[in-house]
Amino acid sequence: MKRKFFLGIDGGGTKCKARLESFDGELLGEGLSGPCNPAQSADTALSSIIDVTNQALTSANLPLPTISELDVCLGLAGVNIPVYRNLVENWPLPFLSTHITTDLHIACMGAHAGKEGAIIISGTGSSALANVNGELSSIGGHGFPLGDKAGGAWLGWRALSYTLEALDALQPKTPLVDLVCEALNTNSAQEIVGQALHYTSNEYGKLAPIVVQLAKEKEPAAVSIVEEGKHYLMSVISRLDTLGAKRISMIGGLASHWCEWFPEATLQRLSPVMCSPEYGAVAVVKQIMKDL
Amino acid sequence: MKRKFFLGIDGGGTKCKARLESFDGELLGEGLSGPCNPAQSADTALSSIIDVTNQALTSANLPLPTISELDVCLGLAGVNIPVYRNLVENWPLPFLSTHITTDLHIACMGAHAGKEGAIIISGTGSSALANVNGELSSIGGHGFPLGDKAGGAWLGWRALSYTLEALDALQPKTPLVDLVCEALNTNSAQEIVGQALHYTSNEYGKLAPIVVQLAKEKEPAAVSIVEEGKHYLMSVISRLDTLGAKRISMIGGLASHWCEWFPEATLQRLSPVMCSPEYGAVAVVKQIMKDL
Repeated sequence: MKRKFFLGIDGGGTKCKARLESFDGELLGEGLSGPCNPAQSADTALSSIIDVTNQALTSANLPLPTISELDVCLGLAGVNIPVYRNLVENWPLPFLSTHITTDLHIACMGAHAGKEGAIIISGTGSSALANVNGELSSIGGHGFPLGDKAGGAWLGWRALSYTLEALDALQPKTPLVDLVCEALNTNSAQEIVGQALHYTSNEYGKLAPIVVQLAKEKEPAAVSIVEEGKHYLMSVISRLDTLGAKRISMIGGLASHWCEWFPEATLQRLSPVMCSPEYGAVAVVKQIMKDL
Repeated sequence: MKRKFFLGIDGGGTKCKARLESFDGELLGEGLSGPCNPAQSADTALSSIIDVTNQALTSANLPLPTISELDVCLGLAGVNIPVYRNLVENWPLPFLSTHITTDLHIACMGAHAGKEGAIIISGTGSSALANVNGELSSIGGHGFPLGDKAGGAWLGWRALSYTLEALDALQPKTPLVDLVCEALNTNSAQEIVGQALHYTSNEYGKLAPIVVQLAKEKEPAAVSIVEEGKHYLMSVISRLDTLGAKRISMIGGLASHWCEWFPEATLQRLSPVMCSPEYGAVAVVKQIMKDL
């Protein structure tokens, strides 16, 4: 049976995007729906997938029952964890075939327009993936506070930790301390600790822009935090190089800032992102179909 | 009314100790009972206090109703947090008078035999207190992972974080990595992250002996973790010095190890612990009675 339609879905914590291509690579339709993280809410994620698929079919002027003729790649956060992967594998999906992989994998395929390469993500968290010689190798992404160095949560956490040491008079009271205290609306160490007690990564991440801004103004405490993050990312880039990645791209909300701080030699090792994660998802499913 | 009996109670997470002194400073009796941390279990803590008091009275050959003639100082963990302080203040205690303070305060008073001074604690957590010119100033103790640098949980967490970077081939695979993997019974980064996801400070702290042992054997990764902790503690000692503390003592399970690593000049700034926390608690209540 000749396959006719390839659908790539990029499911994230806030939105879900889809790209529908014909066998010949023609873009037929697209879709955009709501949250799609099976580790946060499996029901919401499943309905976002159906929703985004129907949108893509509608925008392609195809009847909704065509859903059963789609070869689909779902790129989802969390499916590297066995319990969520099992959950997604057991969804009653109406597609012709469903291929499940991580958000990182499709982002990497997209960044290099469907070819091999590597990506480093620095958003709220941080992680990296090399896709070389048909093999995926992941680096980092161990979650905050054990890993995820150089992500936004890590930056915010380091800023808060520095602030507490400065309030203890163990570190100089630089502008970073003033801005963190202003953001938290207190300069009492005890109140800061009370507020931070139940902070999620996202809440730590909200302090990251302060560190980024001050590092650009050469504020010494912010510069020292950023230097540590920068050296971590540079060691990740070296590792991706050693793994044989030809193209390496950086993505995520903090990527452009890190690029301002990298030395020239590191920058020259980085390549621009070429296509979207949903494009990468289509590339994954096409590759699988070709190999069958 | 002349006060006759002073009781000092040192309440901790695993046990509760009491010291009963006469007005003239004679040791009349002692007691030892179970867990006494109001932040963990208020009911247990209250009954440990009654229990330890009855033991002290019995060992002093005093009738139990003497409990109503005792001027008592309770030194308890957690009472620096308003909610637990309020809770303890509302206990129906049968003493003549009850004075509530922190475990740090009585440990500091004990360390300096009832006189002023400062202490640094490095156990599972880390913190410091200066008691100078009638004023208490606390440093650190902000809880892991924001603060508590150079405590056992911090050492274990740094060891785990290093191990994950080494498994990602971003750091050399030194013996620290082998021993951490052996302790966790896995060398898969994913399994380590899974295990550590819900680690308490105590569980991180269980890895601290590995770091301590290897640092003594000059293992480079362990040495670099220990160096960071050592510099933090040295900055705390400088700060206590600046605050005017004459005597500074180090206590807690890791204290003797740090002392092996401190330079001579730092060691000379430290003084041995003279008396117990329950001795310190008696000193606190005597001081209050004298000031009345």
